[in-house]
Amino acid sequence: VKIDKTSVVPIYFQLKTLIQERMASGEYPVGLCLPSEREYCEEYGISRMTVRQAIIDLVNEGLLRRERGKGTFVAQPKIEQELQVLTSFTEEMKRRNMQPGTQLIHMVICPATGHVARQLGLKDGESVYEIVRLRMADDEPMAIETAYLPIANLPNLTEEKVATGSLYEVMRESGHEIARATQTLEATLAKATEATKLNIKNKGPVLLIERTTYTSGGQAIEFVKSVYRGDRYKFAIDLRS
Amino acid sequence: VKIDKTSVVPIYFQLKTLIQERMASGEYPVGLCLPSEREYCEEYGISRMTVRQAIIDLVNEGLLRRERGKGTFVAQPKIEQELQVLTSFTEEMKRRNMQPGTQLIHMVICPATGHVARQLGLKDGESVYEIVRLRMADDEPMAIETAYLPIANLPNLTEEKVATGSLYEVMRESGHEIARATQTLEATLAKATEATKLNIKNKGPVLLIERTTYTSGGQAIEFVKSVYRGDRYKFAIDLRS
Repeated sequence: VKIDKTSVVPIYFQLKTLIQERMASGEYPVGLCLPSEREYCEEYGISRMTVRQAIIDLVNEGLLRRERGKGTFVAQPKIEQELQVLTSFTEEMKRRNMQPGTQLIHMVICPATGHVARQLGLKDGESVYEIVRLRMADDEPMAIETAYLPIANLPNLTEEKVATGSLYEVMRESGHEIARATQTLEATLAKATEATKLNIKNKGPVLLIERTTYTSGGQAIEFVKSVYRGDRYKFAIDLRS
Repeated sequence: VKIDKTSVVPIYFQLKTLIQERMASGEYPVGLCLPSEREYCEEYGISRMTVRQAIIDLVNEGLLRRERGKGTFVAQPKIEQELQVLTSFTEEMKRRNMQPGTQLIHMVICPATGHVARQLGLKDGESVYEIVRLRMADDEPMAIETAYLPIANLPNLTEEKVATGSLYEVMRESGHEIARATQTLEATLAKATEATKLNIKNKGPVLLIERTTYTSGGQAIEFVKSVYRGDRYKFAIDLRS
C-alpha cells in the first residue's frame, strides 16, 4: 500500500487505510508504539496536518490509543459480543477464553420505584435486591452492571454468591428457567463515578444496555442496567429479511 | 410520589424518579420547561446540590435537555428502533409515521480499499460508489450514512435516485434480492464535522453502526457506516435462550 497523491481519495484517508492494513497484516501488532508524526511526514512527503488527522481519527475510532508523553500505540481490538445469544457476562467471557472477574460494589435491599418497578412488573415500593458489580475480563474492567431482582424469587441470595459468579446460574439453581429477554442499547457518556471504576476518561463513550429477563412462566426475574466501555466493546448481530 | 428522607434510597435518586414519573404520567409533557432548582429545593426542603445531581443525571441520560439561558426542558423520547428487522431508514421512518428526509452530501466513484474492500469482497482498487447522506425524521437530522456499493451491481445509479429514497428499493428494482446482513454497534463520540451536520455538540455520544448486506446469491452488495445521534436513538432486541 502506498500514498497516491493523484487519487480522488483524500491523503489522510489513504494514510489511515495504510496504518489499518499494517495492523491487519501483523506488521503493527497490538501494543506497538507508532512512528512519530514527523517520520510519516518524511516517509511520504505529506504535511503534519494530514498525518495528525489520520492519527486522530484512528484514536477516536479506538484503533490507536495515546499515552501522554509516551506516544501513540496500537490498541487492543474491541471485544465483539454476539447480541442474539442470551448469555451472562461470566458465560460470555469463558466462551472466549478470557478470565471473568467480578467485584461487588454493593448489594442492598431497597424498594423498587418508577422504571425499575415497571420493568419487573412490581408495585411501587416492593422490595428488590440492588446489586452493583464491576465486571472484568483478564483483570481489565469492562462494564458496570446494576441488577434489580425481586427478593421474593431469590430469598436466600448471599453476597458471596453474587460476588463470585453468574446471576443466571443462581437463578437456575433456584429452579427458575430463563426463557427470554428484551434489551435496549444506547450510546451515552460515562459519568465521573463510572469513568473512575472503568478506568476510562470522564465523559468517554459508553454503551448503556438495559435488559429485562423473563422466566419460562413469563415472569420478569431481573432488570439490569449495564454500562460497557465504548473503547473496548462492540456488539454484533445477524439480520435476515 | 413524595420524597422520603428516611428511605435508604438516596434523595437525588428519589427526585429523579419523581420527575420521571411526572414525565410518564403526562404531568411533564415533552417541551415543558421544568421548575427551577430553587423551586424544587423549597418544595421538598432539600439542598441545591441534591436537585442539581438529579437534573444532571436526567440531562446526561437524555430525558431532559438544557438550553443555555433558557432553562431545562423535557426532551423528546428517543426513537426506539427494532434491531432484528432488516429495513432501510426510509422504510423504518414510514413505519412509525415519521416523515423520512434525505440530504445527499456527496456521491462519488472511488477505489475501494482496506476494510471497505474486505467487507464487500472486492480487490483493493475496484470501483465503488461512496454515497454520504444525512438522514432526517420530521426535518430533524438523525444519522449520517456512508454507503459503499460496488458499481458493477448498479451501473446506472443516479444522484436523483440516491437523494430521494431507499437504496434497498433501488437494489430491488435492479433485480437484487436482499437476503441478510451482518451488523455491529459501537458507542463513540461525534467528530466535529459530524456534530455540525447532526446538530449536536462536538464529542456528543453517537452510535456507530456498520452493516454489510448480502443478496440471496451470497454476494455483498452494500457496506454502510452510520453515525446515529445518541441523544435521539436507542436500539431494541429480543433474545431467546
